[in-house]
Amino acid sequence: MNLTEKMEKLYAVQSRLSAYSHAMSLIFYDGATTAPKKTAENRAHALGILSEESYKISTSDEVVSLLEELDGEKEALCEKDRRVVELMYRDIKEMKQIPMNEYVAYEELLVKADDVWHRAKETNDFPLFAPVLEEIFATQKRFAKYCAPDMKPYDYCLNKFEEGLTCEKCDEFFSALRSRLVPLIAKITSAPQVDDSIAHGTFPADEQEKFSYELMRTIGIDTDLCGLGTTEHPFTTSIGSHRDVRITTNYKEDNFTHSMYSVIHEGGHALYDMNSDDSFAYTVLDGGVSMGIHESQSRFYENLIGRSLPFCRFIFPAVQKCFPEQTRGYTAEDLYRAVNLVTPSLIRTEADEVTYCLHVMIRYELERRVMTDELKVCDLPAEWNRLYKEYLGVDVPDDRHGVLQDSHWSGGGIGYFPSYALGSAYGAQLLAEMRKTVDVDACLASGDFTAINEWNRQNIWRHGCMKTPSELLKNALGTDFDPTFYTDYLEKKYSDIYGI
Amino acid sequence: MNLTEKMEKLYAVQSRLSAYSHAMSLIFYDGATTAPKKTAENRAHALGILSEESYKISTSDEVVSLLEELDGEKEALCEKDRRVVELMYRDIKEMKQIPMNEYVAYEELLVKADDVWHRAKETNDFPLFAPVLEEIFATQKRFAKYCAPDMKPYDYCLNKFEEGLTCEKCDEFFSALRSRLVPLIAKITSAPQVDDSIAHGTFPADEQEKFSYELMRTIGIDTDLCGLGTTEHPFTTSIGSHRDVRITTNYKEDNFTHSMYSVIHEGGHALYDMNSDDSFAYTVLDGGVSMGIHESQSRFYENLIGRSLPFCRFIFPAVQKCFPEQTRGYTAEDLYRAVNLVTPSLIRTEADEVTYCLHVMIRYELERRVMTDELKVCDLPAEWNRLYKEYLGVDVPDDRHGVLQDSHWSGGGIGYFPSYALGSAYGAQLLAEMRKTVDVDACLASGDFTAINEWNRQNIWRHGCMKTPSELLKNALGTDFDPTFYTDYLEKKYSDIYGI
Repeated sequence: MNLTEKMEKLYAVQSRLSAYSHAMSLIFYDGATTAPKKTAENRAHALGILSEESYKISTSDEVVSLLEELDGEKEALCEKDRRVVELMYRDIKEMKQIPMNEYVAYEELLVKADDVWHRAKETNDFPLFAPVLEEIFATQKRFAKYCAPDMKPYDYCLNKFEEGLTCEKCDEFFSALRSRLVPLIAKITSAPQVDDSIAHGTFPADEQEKFSYELMRTIGIDTDLCGLGTTEHPFTTSIGSHRDVRITTNYKEDNFTHSMYSVIHEGGHALYDMNSDDSFAYTVLDGGVSMGIHESQSRFYENLIGRSLPFCRFIFPAVQKCFPEQTRGYTAEDLYRAVNLVTPSLIRTEADEVTYCLHVMIRYELERRVMTDELKVCDLPAEWNRLYKEYLGVDVPDDRHGVLQDSHWSGGGIGYFPSYALGSAYGAQLLAEMRKTVDVDACLASGDFTAINEWNRQNIWRHGCMKTPSELLKNALGTDFDPTFYTDYLEKKYSDIYGI
Repeated sequence: MNLTEKMEKLYAVQSRLSAYSHAMSLIFYDGATTAPKKTAENRAHALGILSEESYKISTSDEVVSLLEELDGEKEALCEKDRRVVELMYRDIKEMKQIPMNEYVAYEELLVKADDVWHRAKETNDFPLFAPVLEEIFATQKRFAKYCAPDMKPYDYCLNKFEEGLTCEKCDEFFSALRSRLVPLIAKITSAPQVDDSIAHGTFPADEQEKFSYELMRTIGIDTDLCGLGTTEHPFTTSIGSHRDVRITTNYKEDNFTHSMYSVIHEGGHALYDMNSDDSFAYTVLDGGVSMGIHESQSRFYENLIGRSLPFCRFIFPAVQKCFPEQTRGYTAEDLYRAVNLVTPSLIRTEADEVTYCLHVMIRYELERRVMTDELKVCDLPAEWNRLYKEYLGVDVPDDRHGVLQDSHWSGGGIGYFPSYALGSAYGAQLLAEMRKTVDVDACLASGDFTAINEWNRQNIWRHGCMKTPSELLKNALGTDFDPTFYTDYLEKKYSDIYGI
């Protein structure tokens, strides 16, 4: 086989694998949205087998030796092919370290865990969830030993979501954030509170759903290529390729802004996934490169522009049209203040921009300590509650509003949370860079996202996984990442809103 | 390997294949219910690969020689294992006759056809659909030649839905039906028409949806194991095993009885699928044995008991509760008459019990003639319209209400339609047999389906694919199939309703 033939063969393997990924993503999506309640075991059966089949293809002698050969000849490859080989070889070398039975057992465990977590949250029963969570942590520790024996186990976890991230970098980043945010929060909480009564009332889910589609179209999503579902915990997933993406939301009938910003957040993820270079479909280059970059896009749309005054002014007539009775007598400025109310609270997904990173830090600290065996899974609820009191000054009434609130751990996403804070900070710096060439406020005022999306497409989306997260950022920003863009942005915005 | 080990290996193969079936059913279900509109090609990509993978497993040398060996030793196998070997060996011998590239191309064609048919129906554009339909018929003819060179091609098609069925048997059956139904319809249409105004009005889809779940539970479906979706054309599918089943319906907001009986019909299919012996999960014995038997169950619940007077009396208070304004002043007897109104019409799925089989005969005649090259696909609309005029006396206004109405052909279901008529007739004879030991009317009067379902479970459902359709029927009926049970039932019921 010559080099061209070898690459063709490798692309055929990726295409095959994408069909398994299509099936597994859809089974997961279906389980979270429409599957009947008692069918989790049946799903686990199929997922176990499909992940085994997919694992076998990936790690087959044929594929491994193909990659070894191509890795040896990588100087002769074009940039795209070289990156494909690099990514696949890295992942497969890692995968080969994990015994297949453990790999498959873990996939099955995650399906079961999702079901158990849902029930545990519904019934406020952490002890029900604890044994599977323990097994998830134990598996992650084992996998870390297999795959990255020279790395700290928690660094291994962090790296799966953000290549190059370490505990040390996280500590530094969070400490920079903390030093600016804690005094800001103190100032805000001693200032008079803003009025958010516009957000409260009765907002039927079906009206909110119609509004969700309008929001998706407003930010530039083609709803014929991106679906919307309803789940306990909102998420975004692509189905097999960037040519079919699904977002989900959760409607609270007493507050329409909850789902509104959830849809814009997931919409940001969707835009990133949907706009990979079309030639990347059915290859490992398709979709977002890391969760940090992903969150930079989702939180960019949600907060940096979604919660800006020009966007609130633009979207307010649509809000009024959907909820005419409920919003009578209010203005766009009322909406702006309501969606930027800062108040230490219990639920991360409902947290404001300023306190948000403290929610993330708590999770970071807890999962890191479990991974280093400094904390037992059974002690998570008590530690969670203690840290919420310490960091945010709130009393956690029960585990549903505490340690059971997020789906990440049950999905195996240990090491994921720091991405939210990092992404938020990336986003602020990206916005500052974008403003150099795009009149962002004018775009938002007219509700025309073309120039904003085009900037993101050129600088972030189209690259898929071609660049590492840090290469991508450096390329887009022209300089190194610096979290002060984010803290500056927060200080300025909230000083204005709270008049401090 | 000893015999036990060989059978274990064969069950492992079936388990693997069930995961592919899970994925493919779900991708199809998702495409029909919730997938974004422009994602059909992405689905076709995944389905093409998954069907290829599944085909490769089924027809691998390893599996084929395993089956050959087991076939040679079948006398030593228990009844269950013997049936497994028989079914798999039969299907795989057939499959091996079809070149893999043609098999995969056909799977991809069907995904495309589903999309094209939806668009053609929406825009009343038969010429858009004709080329893919032509390709589907051409493929069926080719497959028939490969797999059953000694059979008439259309008999090959019939056999895929009802083992042992032939054109000759169909002709005989339909002629028996025709001789009794045509005079009955003539009598009914000259009698005064019943009043069906209770069915008409405005019935919001979301209210109908709530009622659908109540209907499902009434007939004994555990809605935690069986989901409900909304599609253009209602259908039932199991997802990987009988442990996860989905039905769909379509709401007409001007007539609640349409979806009501659609849900009961699909509910009958679901009950059959869901109640296979639990040990059959992830084997080829799982689920219904043929479409004829399947329709005997669906049309049993829909018509034989669903449109009976005792059931109408039982369900009427629930109808009133869902639609209090719309049903004010009506009685259960009004509902009974309305859902049994006989009138020659355009749409099969909305047809009454008496004219229903004429709709089936038209489709039977047309597809048979296309399969024998007596009719071209492009001439289907004209012939369709001519036969509707001849058989039912109605003028077809456009192809949406004519040849494009059903999804069967676009799904490759050539040879399927006769099952509906056969199943209806099986059902009537099964009911007569059931009445010997079960007080069916008393069960329906109290809305307690336990004894009815238990009879069906014992005699039909639990057997899965253990027996051939004719063995199963003979076993349940204690005698041969005889369509006069059906025509007797129709004559008696409708003579009473129409006072003729």
